[in-house]
Amino acid sequence: MAKIKSKKNGTKKETIIEAAAHMFREKGFSATSMRDLAEKVGVEAASLYNHIQSKSEILQEICFKVANQFTNFIHELENSNIASIDKIERLLRFHIQQIVNNYEEVHVADREWKYLDEPYLFNYQNQRRLYRKRIAAIIEQGIQRNEIKPIDAPTAVLIILHAVSGIESWHRSRQKISAAELEENMVLILVKGLQKDS
Amino acid sequence: MAKIKSKKNGTKKETIIEAAAHMFREKGFSATSMRDLAEKVGVEAASLYNHIQSKSEILQEICFKVANQFTNFIHELENSNIASIDKIERLLRFHIQQIVNNYEEVHVADREWKYLDEPYLFNYQNQRRLYRKRIAAIIEQGIQRNEIKPIDAPTAVLIILHAVSGIESWHRSRQKISAAELEENMVLILVKGLQKDS
Repeated sequence: MAKIKSKKNGTKKETIIEAAAHMFREKGFSATSMRDLAEKVGVEAASLYNHIQSKSEILQEICFKVANQFTNFIHELENSNIASIDKIERLLRFHIQQIVNNYEEVHVADREWKYLDEPYLFNYQNQRRLYRKRIAAIIEQGIQRNEIKPIDAPTAVLIILHAVSGIESWHRSRQKISAAELEENMVLILVKGLQKDS
Repeated sequence: MAKIKSKKNGTKKETIIEAAAHMFREKGFSATSMRDLAEKVGVEAASLYNHIQSKSEILQEICFKVANQFTNFIHELENSNIASIDKIERLLRFHIQQIVNNYEEVHVADREWKYLDEPYLFNYQNQRRLYRKRIAAIIEQGIQRNEIKPIDAPTAVLIILHAVSGIESWHRSRQKISAAELEENMVLILVKGLQKDS
């Protein structure tokens, strides 16, 4: 029986998760079976279970890995000694880079999390809600410091996060600008849209 | 057997379509059956077929009704004698108002169109693509007229349309600002983000 070939520097579990992220993104979590996944990895279904317990466990791994990356990033940002508008710019750039470079996992974490089992579902939704509140707090601070226009912070968060998730259609488009150009254009429109005229 | 009560000024078909839009938005097109729909309308399934042929026909009606509203709007806009940046502002306001006031149908047209049958699917995708190109052309014109920053027009279209579709989460949020405030905030961030400093 074929063995799971692990990538250089990666564990077998990581190899499975990477293949699963690709399939969950392409077909959706519900429509992907462990059999499909085994075929993709090039092994028999039974041997997957040496490394992971269930399809749900893979989804948990993907969702919380992505969520933790964003949570760690905003934690650093909150503690950095820069202007609030610059924090928002860095956050926007981080989101864009994540969805460009780590497309499959970020997409799955953003769209398929609703299939998480409890208590993971509750925890994940909570983590998302808190994350949005932390972005809104940075924006509020920027408004108080006169760096950001007096806007409704949750609306600004909504615009930023949804604009970023639209990069999915950039991924799919045939004649696309480079990732760097995409990032500069998004910063130019969104950060300048938030920034108060000096 | 109960008869379909039609709304004041509406036909029975319109009553069915309205109920279907609500269900397709809530449960998705695939998960909604004609039986569910009949129950919602308060009649037996057989009597639905006096007014519509199939679930697919309802989806077509919803998708093309919405698409035509946007197409008609951009047609008027193209022919209006105002600055390009003002055209973009009006378009943004129209999108926001449509998704606020006509939430169910706009949501279904935006998310469930992939379940259209051919040749409707092809036509619909084409209409969407052309619509995006027409918005991009207005932005390009604004750049040439020095009203809009020299940005990548398709990226600006991506940001605008995805930010607008994010209003879905505004709909679901409990402590929300008014629709008018939402509109002003989105215009303030997005239109000012596009506009060239004078």
